[in-house]
Amino acid sequence: MAHIELNNPYPGISGLLAFRPVTAAPLNHLAETLLRGESPLPQGERELIAGYVSHLNNCRFCTGCHIGAAQCLLNDDGTLMAQVKQDAESADISEKMKALLAVAAAVQKTGKAVTAEIINRAKSTGASDVELHDTVLIAAAFCMFNRYVDGLGTWAPEDEASYVNAGKRLAAHGYLGE
Amino acid sequence: MAHIELNNPYPGISGLLAFRPVTAAPLNHLAETLLRGESPLPQGERELIAGYVSHLNNCRFCTGCHIGAAQCLLNDDGTLMAQVKQDAESADISEKMKALLAVAAAVQKTGKAVTAEIINRAKSTGASDVELHDTVLIAAAFCMFNRYVDGLGTWAPEDEASYVNAGKRLAAHGYLGE
Repeated sequence: MAHIELNNPYPGISGLLAFRPVTAAPLNHLAETLLRGESPLPQGERELIAGYVSHLNNCRFCTGCHIGAAQCLLNDDGTLMAQVKQDAESADISEKMKALLAVAAAVQKTGKAVTAEIINRAKSTGASDVELHDTVLIAAAFCMFNRYVDGLGTWAPEDEASYVNAGKRLAAHGYLGE
Repeated sequence: MAHIELNNPYPGISGLLAFRPVTAAPLNHLAETLLRGESPLPQGERELIAGYVSHLNNCRFCTGCHIGAAQCLLNDDGTLMAQVKQDAESADISEKMKALLAVAAAVQKTGKAVTAEIINRAKSTGASDVELHDTVLIAAAFCMFNRYVDGLGTWAPEDEASYVNAGKRLAAHGYLGE
């Protein structure tokens, strides 16, 4: 049960967005911009960064939804997603994506954990300044979303199928409630 | 020097917002809503939560700006802000504010660190569900802003007077660049 009375049955962030429409508007606007707006990073890779950081933050709801969206957008049957969650460095992804996930993992710890060495590794794989910017901001944003969802004690579905379906919906329709 | 080439001289988040206007829009919208939009928490207390979390995250730029804004809005000469940064529990603030800062401090660690005990303490001092919601979301949001600012290695002014002035500007004009 959530720490506050939400007066709705929705899980995870959905319950919080319905509880407080005033703050839902900018949060939805931010998620839509970061994950589906203009960026040199493909949507599937942005969802993977979001899902990976949520996994590192041990946030069941956000991990399920964003790994689900990445799985859909990257045409994965779940194999690749399982590899990334277990060990991103040995997963079947590009060297650039491994380096960007290493940037995201540092951000998940704290901003100051992002060293010149971690940044330079990503640059050496071809990551541009805008790609680095978007990676850091997406990782930072999920340090917010994960804390919001778990800090208010929201509930999360247990079954994997719910998240695969949620991921498909998010991949197709996004974050503006359309 | 920032980890990426910002092509502008601005410190902290200002340099990042100028570098990437596409993401600046929802970030400014979020800051304005959380810190100056409709809420049962007074603006000064919301800025104090933002500054306190930034202090716990060791983010020089955000701490300076938001403690500066709180100082201005709470008519403090700096004494109260120094007390809160040193030890919020013994600072000259209300029991409710102490309890809300304890919620914020838990969020700063991780969402799951917010226990029923921490929430119940705040409720026992009179904190409402919306006040708890807004406290958790503001604390979570500054875990994003702080990581964004430090994760991209932005620079921060050294002198305290810059932050007092920045705080006054933010308290008066807010986050929409008006």
